[in-house]
Amino acid sequence: MSAQDFLVELGTEELPPKALKTLGDAFLAGIEKGLKSAGLSYSGSRVYAAPRRLAVVIDQLAVQQPDRSVNMDGPPVQAAFDADGNPTQAALGFAKKCGVDISAIDRSGPKLKFSQSIPGQPAVGLLAGIVTSSLNDLPIPKRMRWGARKEEFVRPTQWLVMLFGDEVVDCEILAQKAGRESRGHRFHHPDSVRISSPANYLEDLRSAYVLADFAERRSLISKRVDTLAAEQKGSAIVPPALLDEVTALVEWPVPLVCSFEERFLAVPQEALITTMQDNQKYFCLLDANGKLLPRFITVANVESKDPAQIISGNEKVVRPRLTDAEFFFKQDKKQKLDSFNARLANVVFQAQLGSVFDKAERVSLLAAFIAARIGGDSPRAARAGLLSKCDLATEMVGEFPEMQGIAGYYYALNDGEPEDVALALNEQYMPRGAGAELPSTLTGSAVAIADKLDTLVGIFGIGMLPTGSKDPYALRRAALGILRILIEKKLDLDLAATITFAIEQFGAKVKNDGLASLVQDFIFDRLRARYEDEGVDVAVYQAVRAVNPVSPLDFDQRVQAVQAFRALPEAEALAAANKRVSNLLSKADGNVAAGIEAHYFDSPSEFSLNAAIQQADHAVQPLAQARLYSEALAQLAGLREPVDAFFAAVMVNAEDPSVRANRYALLAKLRSLFLGVADISLLG
Amino acid sequence: MSAQDFLVELGTEELPPKALKTLGDAFLAGIEKGLKSAGLSYSGSRVYAAPRRLAVVIDQLAVQQPDRSVNMDGPPVQAAFDADGNPTQAALGFAKKCGVDISAIDRSGPKLKFSQSIPGQPAVGLLAGIVTSSLNDLPIPKRMRWGARKEEFVRPTQWLVMLFGDEVVDCEILAQKAGRESRGHRFHHPDSVRISSPANYLEDLRSAYVLADFAERRSLISKRVDTLAAEQKGSAIVPPALLDEVTALVEWPVPLVCSFEERFLAVPQEALITTMQDNQKYFCLLDANGKLLPRFITVANVESKDPAQIISGNEKVVRPRLTDAEFFFKQDKKQKLDSFNARLANVVFQAQLGSVFDKAERVSLLAAFIAARIGGDSPRAARAGLLSKCDLATEMVGEFPEMQGIAGYYYALNDGEPEDVALALNEQYMPRGAGAELPSTLTGSAVAIADKLDTLVGIFGIGMLPTGSKDPYALRRAALGILRILIEKKLDLDLAATITFAIEQFGAKVKNDGLASLVQDFIFDRLRARYEDEGVDVAVYQAVRAVNPVSPLDFDQRVQAVQAFRALPEAEALAAANKRVSNLLSKADGNVAAGIEAHYFDSPSEFSLNAAIQQADHAVQPLAQARLYSEALAQLAGLREPVDAFFAAVMVNAEDPSVRANRYALLAKLRSLFLGVADISLLG
Repeated sequence: MSAQDFLVELGTEELPPKALKTLGDAFLAGIEKGLKSAGLSYSGSRVYAAPRRLAVVIDQLAVQQPDRSVNMDGPPVQAAFDADGNPTQAALGFAKKCGVDISAIDRSGPKLKFSQSIPGQPAVGLLAGIVTSSLNDLPIPKRMRWGARKEEFVRPTQWLVMLFGDEVVDCEILAQKAGRESRGHRFHHPDSVRISSPANYLEDLRSAYVLADFAERRSLISKRVDTLAAEQKGSAIVPPALLDEVTALVEWPVPLVCSFEERFLAVPQEALITTMQDNQKYFCLLDANGKLLPRFITVANVESKDPAQIISGNEKVVRPRLTDAEFFFKQDKKQKLDSFNARLANVVFQAQLGSVFDKAERVSLLAAFIAARIGGDSPRAARAGLLSKCDLATEMVGEFPEMQGIAGYYYALNDGEPEDVALALNEQYMPRGAGAELPSTLTGSAVAIADKLDTLVGIFGIGMLPTGSKDPYALRRAALGILRILIEKKLDLDLAATITFAIEQFGAKVKNDGLASLVQDFIFDRLRARYEDEGVDVAVYQAVRAVNPVSPLDFDQRVQAVQAFRALPEAEALAAANKRVSNLLSKADGNVAAGIEAHYFDSPSEFSLNAAIQQADHAVQPLAQARLYSEALAQLAGLREPVDAFFAAVMVNAEDPSVRANRYALLAKLRSLFLGVADISLLG
Repeated sequence: MSAQDFLVELGTEELPPKALKTLGDAFLAGIEKGLKSAGLSYSGSRVYAAPRRLAVVIDQLAVQQPDRSVNMDGPPVQAAFDADGNPTQAALGFAKKCGVDISAIDRSGPKLKFSQSIPGQPAVGLLAGIVTSSLNDLPIPKRMRWGARKEEFVRPTQWLVMLFGDEVVDCEILAQKAGRESRGHRFHHPDSVRISSPANYLEDLRSAYVLADFAERRSLISKRVDTLAAEQKGSAIVPPALLDEVTALVEWPVPLVCSFEERFLAVPQEALITTMQDNQKYFCLLDANGKLLPRFITVANVESKDPAQIISGNEKVVRPRLTDAEFFFKQDKKQKLDSFNARLANVVFQAQLGSVFDKAERVSLLAAFIAARIGGDSPRAARAGLLSKCDLATEMVGEFPEMQGIAGYYYALNDGEPEDVALALNEQYMPRGAGAELPSTLTGSAVAIADKLDTLVGIFGIGMLPTGSKDPYALRRAALGILRILIEKKLDLDLAATITFAIEQFGAKVKNDGLASLVQDFIFDRLRARYEDEGVDVAVYQAVRAVNPVSPLDFDQRVQAVQAFRALPEAEALAAANKRVSNLLSKADGNVAAGIEAHYFDSPSEFSLNAAIQQADHAVQPLAQARLYSEALAQLAGLREPVDAFFAAVMVNAEDPSVRANRYALLAKLRSLFLGVADISLLG
C-alpha cells in the first residue's frame, strides 16, 4: 500500500465566525504547501470548517517520500589536482560542500562530479511537523494562551484527531495528543465520536449532528432561507458576508421564521435591517415592492422539539433593539432636520478647515453653483447642501452609522422638503465605491460633486496631499466619483471654474498658490487609469490631455473621437506629420510669419495644402464648437494627401527667411486645426 | 295677453357643417339685439340648428312695445325770451329740435322743457324686420343666389315658419312666405310637419325624426360613441371640432361600429386616423395602450332597418383611403429616410436662403451646437437635424400634410435610427401652438430650437422683419417657442452665442450688420407679454432686461427673484434709493473716484454704509454666481437702513471735489451690487 488517506481535525472552543472560512482555507493551503515541499504526492484535498473545528482531508497521500538522487558538478578535473595528483583547494572545497571525503568524488568526466541517492522517509513521521507549521502560519492577528499552558492559538484547543489510513498518527500538537475521538454537536451529541477513517469523517460527524462542510452548511442555509421567505410571500435579503458569518456560527443549521410588531415598520426600514443583520445576524424579508415585512429568519443551531420557544426567544431579543431604533427615530423627529446644524457648528471637520457646519455652508453654495451649470435647480441644491450633514448629529446615525444619508432622507421628507432635496442627502455619498450607483437626481449630483470637491480643495489647500497608499480623506475616490458622475451622467461642467469657486469659499483658510491647477491636475490624472481600464490607449488620453479640456464630459467626447480617428487609415501618417510639424515649430524660435501670404509659395503642393487648410478651417471650426469631434477629425483626415505631398515636394527650411517664415505659418495653421480637438502628434 | 312665445325657423338646403353652430348662435344673437333695441322684453331664448334649418324660440315675448315718455331740457327761461317776451334764437332752436311749435314748450320751470309720450307699437309688426336684419348680419363669407331670384343667403332657402303665439306672422323673408309648415327628416318623414306652437316646436319635429337641438344631438352622439367604443373595449378619439361637424351633418344621429382590415394597422396610425377623421368624419378607436383598433364609428343620419348595409357601405368607402396610406407607407420605406435629402436640394426654402436641404444642414450643425450646451448629445442632435426635413419629400406627407414630423418618426425608427433621433423629427415642430406640448427629449429640444432660430436668423437676415399683423414665417411664434422650451424645460443656453453661431452658418447669405442683437432683442421682447400673462409686473421684466441676461432660463430665475424681492418691506425704499443713485451717477460726468478711500469720509453714516457694502459685496457675489438671486436680493435688502441713514445725513455733492468723487464711488459700488441681479431702480 503506497498511499492512504490522511485526516487532521483540530477541535477548539468556538472560533471567530467572521474569520472561520479564511482560517480553514489557510489551514488547507499550509498543509498542501508542506506536503509539496516534502515531496509527498496526493490525489485530492478538502477542508472542513465548523464553529468548533478545522479539518483537512488529503486523499491518497503517499506513505513514503520518493528516493531522490542528487547530482552536483564541481571544478574541471584539470583544476582539481596539482601536478603531484594532490587535490587542490577547489577540489577539497567541492568535497566539503558535498559532505563527503574527496575519495568519494567521481573524477571520470571533464569535471568533478558527485552523485548521491537520498532514500525517502515515511510520511507518517513528517505529518506532525507539516500540520504544526501550517497552524503556526494561520493568519491570526492576535493569538491567545489558555490555562497555564504556553501554547498559543486563536482559541483554546480541545482535541486533535489525526489519522493516516486507519491509524492514529502518534503526536501532540498545540497541547493535544492526537487520537481518533472527535466530538459531536454540543447539545445533540455531547459524547465523543469515533472517526473510523478519513473517508468516513464527514458521515461520522453527520450522525453526531455536525455538518462539518462549510459549503454544504452554507448552501443548506441559503436554500432553506429562500424557501421560508417564499412561504412568507417575500424574498430574503442575504448579503454574502452575513451568510458566511451565520454559516460559521452553527454546526447543525435550522432556519426559523420569526415576527416583530408591525408598528416598527414606521421606522426607516434601513435602520431595522441594519440592526437585525449586524447585531442579531438575522435575515430580513422584503415584499414584492421592496418593503420590509414584519418577519425575519434566524438560523438556530439545534433541531428543537419546540421551535416556538426558540422563535419567541429571538423575538424577545430583537424587540429592545427595534424599540431603540423607534425611539431614536421619534426623538430625532421632534426637531426639524435643519436645526441639527446648530450642533454641527461645534463638531470639527478638520482643525484648519473649521466645523462640519462650515463645510455644509460651503457645500450649499458650491452645489448651487454647480446646479446652475448642469441644468439643475440652484435653490434646491443650496438647500440640500445646507442640510447635507445634519443627520450626522441625529441619535439615529449616532447609533447606526450606516444610516448616514438615509436618515437624512427620511427626516427631510418628514419635514416636507422636496423629494430631490431629500434624495440628495443620501446621494451626496454616491458613488459609494468602484462601480457603485450614481446619484439619480441633478440636485443629488450637484451636492455629491460639491461635497467631494470641497474636501479635495480643502485638504489640498492645507497641504495634506495623498502620498502613496496614504489617503486618509479618500481623495482619490472623491476625484474618481466626481469624474464618474460628470461623464456617465453626461453633465457638462467647467471644472476649472468650479474649482476656483470652491477655493474662494475657503477664504484665507487655504493656501491659494497654484491650488486650482493642483486640484485640477489631480482630478484629471485619475482619468488615465479609468481609460486604461476601458482599453483606451494611454496615448489617446495624453493627446486629449495636452489640449486641456476643462470639462470631463468634453474630455471624454474628445477621447471617444480620437479613439475612433486612430482606426482611420489616414491616422498614422497624420500623427507623424503632426509630430514633424510640432518638432519644426518648436525650433522655429519666433521665425513664424504672422499671416500666410500666397506670393511666397513656390510649389503647387504649397498652394494645394494652403487651399486644403483653408477649406478644412472653414468646416472644422463649427464642428468643434458643436462638439462633433469625430466629424471634425474625419474632415481633418482629408488633409493627409496634401500634407504628404507638401512634405515630399517642399523643403520647409528654405534659404529665404521670408519664404521659410511663411511656411512655418502655414504649418502652424495646420497644427492649430488639429489642436482644436487633440494633440494627435502624441499618437505616433 | 301681454306676452306670448315666438318661433322663427328658416328651412334651407344643407348648411355648411363647419359653420352651422356659429350661424345658429349668430342668428339668435341678432334677434336678441333687435328685440332689445325695439324695447321688446322676453323671459328666455333658445336657438336650434340642424343641417337644413336654423330656428330661434323666444319665450314670453311682449306683444307690444311699452309706451315711452321723452323729456328734453332746453335753455334757461331767462335766455329764452327777450325783453318783449319774444322767443330768442335759442328757444326757437330747441322747439325745432323737439319737432313742435314754441307754444308747445313748457316754460314753467327755470329751464325750457318738453315732454312727450310715445305709444308702443305691436311687436308682431316689428318681427319680420328684426329677423331679416339678423339674417343679413350672419357671418357668411360668401352668399349665394339660387334660381332666378335676387335674394342671397349661405344656401338656398326652402321654407319659413314664423309663429307669434299660435298665429303665423304674416311676412316674407328671403323669398319664403312665412307659415306653420316645417319639414321632417328627409327620408323618415318626407311630408311637411305642422308646428302647433313655438313651445311644441322641438317635440313636433322630434316626431318627424328631426332632433333640431344641436346640443342634444351632440350629447347624444358623444354618449353613444363612448358606449359603442367601450363595447369594443376601446375608447373613441372625439376631437370637439369633429363632434361639432358630425352633429351638423345629421338630423337623426345613429352611430354605428364599422371595421377595417387588421393589416392596415401596420401603417402609422396617425395617417389612418387623419384620413378617417378628416376625409370620412369617422370616430377612431384606441385600445387601452393607445393603439388604434381596426374599428371606427360612423354616424348615420337614418334609423335603418338594415344597419349592416350602412356599415358595409362605409367600410367599402374607407378602404381605398386606407389602401392609399398603406401604399405611400410601403413606397416611402423602399428608400432610407436620409436619401430624401437629395430631393430637398431642389426644393426652395426661401429664394435668398437656399434649399430645404441647405436648411437641414444648417439645422444639423446648430442643433449639435445647442445640444452640447444643454447637456444633450451632439452627434444625435446633428443626425436628427440632418434628417429633420426628409419626410417633407415623402409620398405620405405629400398626401397627408398633417403627417409631417410623424412620418419622419416612423421612417427613422424603420431605418434603425435611435429613438431620440426619431422622436426629434416630430418634436422639432413643438410647441405647435400656444400652451402646446414641448419636446420630451434633449435631442428634440435642440432640433426644435435650432429649426426656429435658423428661420429667425435667416428671415431677419434678409430684412423680412415681421410688421404688425404680417408675420408670414410665424417668427413671433418661433421666438416664443424657443423661450418656452428653454424656460419650461429649464435648459440653460447662452442665446447670444447661439445666435452668433447660427448667423455664421448662413455665410454671405445674410446681412450680418447688427443682425445678432436684432434677433436677440426680438426674442427677449416676447418675454414681456409672457410675463404680463403670468401677472408679473412689466417693471420687473424691465428691471431684469436692463442687465441683459443672455440665457432665457437665467432671465426667468432673475425675474422670479425680483418678483419675490418686491414683496419685501425694504423693496420700495431701495428701489427709490437706486433711482436716486442712478440719477446722481448719470450727472456725475466722470467725477467718480476710481476707488473708495475711507479718509475722505466725514460722517459715521458714510463709514457704516461703506462697511455694509463691503460685507454685502463679499456675500452677494458668490450668491449671484450660484444663481441664488433671491438670497442675493435678501442680502441686499439689509442695505436699506445704512442707505437711508446715509442719504439722511450726507450731502453727496460736497464742495470738496475729492470728497464728492469719493461719495460717487461709494454709490457706484452700491449700484453695481444690485445690477448683479437686476436694475431695481426701474421698480420705483
